[in-house]
Amino acid sequence: MPQTNRQVRLAARPSGLPRLADWQFTNEAVPDPGPGEFVTEISHLSIDPAMRGWMNAGASYVPPVEIGAVMRAGGIGRVTASQHPGFAVGDYVYGTFGVQEYATSDGRGVLKLDLSLAEPTAYLGVLGMTGLTAYFGLLDTGRLKEGDTVVVSGAAGAVGSVAGQIAKIKGCQVIGIAGGQEKCRLVTEEFGFDEAIDYRLPHLRRTLRELAPGGVDVYFDNVGGEILDDVLTCIAREARIVICGAISQYNETQVRGPANYMMLLVARASMTGFLVFDFADRYPEAMAELAGWYQAGRLVARETVVTGGVEDFPETLLKLFEGANTGKLILALDGS
Amino acid sequence: MPQTNRQVRLAARPSGLPRLADWQFTNEAVPDPGPGEFVTEISHLSIDPAMRGWMNAGASYVPPVEIGAVMRAGGIGRVTASQHPGFAVGDYVYGTFGVQEYATSDGRGVLKLDLSLAEPTAYLGVLGMTGLTAYFGLLDTGRLKEGDTVVVSGAAGAVGSVAGQIAKIKGCQVIGIAGGQEKCRLVTEEFGFDEAIDYRLPHLRRTLRELAPGGVDVYFDNVGGEILDDVLTCIAREARIVICGAISQYNETQVRGPANYMMLLVARASMTGFLVFDFADRYPEAMAELAGWYQAGRLVARETVVTGGVEDFPETLLKLFEGANTGKLILALDGS
Repeated sequence: MPQTNRQVRLAARPSGLPRLADWQFTNEAVPDPGPGEFVTEISHLSIDPAMRGWMNAGASYVPPVEIGAVMRAGGIGRVTASQHPGFAVGDYVYGTFGVQEYATSDGRGVLKLDLSLAEPTAYLGVLGMTGLTAYFGLLDTGRLKEGDTVVVSGAAGAVGSVAGQIAKIKGCQVIGIAGGQEKCRLVTEEFGFDEAIDYRLPHLRRTLRELAPGGVDVYFDNVGGEILDDVLTCIAREARIVICGAISQYNETQVRGPANYMMLLVARASMTGFLVFDFADRYPEAMAELAGWYQAGRLVARETVVTGGVEDFPETLLKLFEGANTGKLILALDGS
Repeated sequence: MPQTNRQVRLAARPSGLPRLADWQFTNEAVPDPGPGEFVTEISHLSIDPAMRGWMNAGASYVPPVEIGAVMRAGGIGRVTASQHPGFAVGDYVYGTFGVQEYATSDGRGVLKLDLSLAEPTAYLGVLGMTGLTAYFGLLDTGRLKEGDTVVVSGAAGAVGSVAGQIAKIKGCQVIGIAGGQEKCRLVTEEFGFDEAIDYRLPHLRRTLRELAPGGVDVYFDNVGGEILDDVLTCIAREARIVICGAISQYNETQVRGPANYMMLLVARASMTGFLVFDFADRYPEAMAELAGWYQAGRLVARETVVTGGVEDFPETLLKLFEGANTGKLILALDGS
């Protein structure tokens, strides 16, 4: 019996929140690897806010997922067949394998996981793109320095929780912004931020001004929208605003721009976007540092793991926009 | 007969465009200078978009003009009485003298004009804060480099026209954005920009994309609003957006934030505000370079001079927001 590879493909470009009709479920035979190729059985899929952007038409930092194509996704899994000299059956690997059960690869962009450092799913979180994004965004784009007052939005989320922890390791005062008391508790108690602000409560600006009377030196923004505007009113001179994401806006047909952007002039401040991919040649050094912190218990990994099949991907993705997850959102494929 | 010092004071904080009722006209005796002071008879007032911001309540990069205070303004004039060792009667000086006919000063922030380099009004324009703003904004904040594609909005205005000319001197391809065909003609023919786009015509984005197919490396923004959003869609990788002003928004009660700011992420670009005052210790070197270009005819000064009394200030200020001026807007006091 040939094995079946179940897949999720993009059927239509969503307007607003993706609906079930925007997806198509297909079954293919699991391919045999050609020369120089290998096949991975995917065990865990990384569920990321950026996925929403990949579903839109138009040029961005990566080409959009084409209609009819398997949805792009990072994932980890085990090599089940190989004609590639660098990858052997049984290797645990990370790659952009897509929302499917099996993927063929020629090895480009695929990373072999060192399971002596951490469990496999850590390579989707603190030791993967998530951790690297926080690391380079904060330290390079944000030019973080000891003693800075740092604010992180989406602080209970995958990237935000790592960003705040790195800022603490680097000797900063760190304030997280998250939605709800339970997340705020997590932000301070588990992730060790100095303070957490529940953005669902009123007076975010006033609270932030009280907690950061000298102003915010670095704002690591994952959410955009009204929170970005609020933080802009509290920035310190020469503040660095790092644009990592804008999850509050990804499903809006009319994006809300930061009306208070002229605070950049008042404060001689900057707002800078970045993409982790640009730092690819420095991944090894960053992963080594992240792994060191992780093994020393200075960096806490938190995951929200949904167990199911690829057909559970559409619903799992929506959790991100409902704010239902804390830490890294992962779809663990049960192979059923 | 004691001389009279006519003054314009802020009577109320305007909402939207300043109205006549927001101003108060007062007469005082011309003061005698105390020890360490001198008195300047003001000949020319600098009329600047930033004035609108100074009229608002609330903290900014300078304190607001208080209700009842003489309106803040840069100006030039001649010293008519002095008890200050550094300033003699007859000296031509620049200072933040306010909208009045005579000003007392202790010399702080006052610059003696070198009339061998240029006529006095040049010190309000190309050799004054205007020129310095363009210089530092473009070269320092904008990190301009030879071969860059540079876009300047408000290109026929005081700062914009100098910014574009400096970019040309530095070997860049320079595109100006201005309102109306007459201004666009001026931008290319007098100021020597490579291209000019009339933002009143449709399809600004498309035109800009055609003129800058490789993308915009530096955008020097004086206007904000819709034009900023349009340019954001055309930025090159690692573009620098320099926030110098946002004249389109200064009289809006609801500021329009740049809805396309996520292009900063796509392009790994930055948006940075600056204030010329932060570069004060480098004014001499910059003025020397600007004066050299000016004397060599490489930098063209254009002025719109309104002749009248201080009572003409309110109406003259409005010209900025009507887009009625080209180059530096100056109110020449006729002493009547």
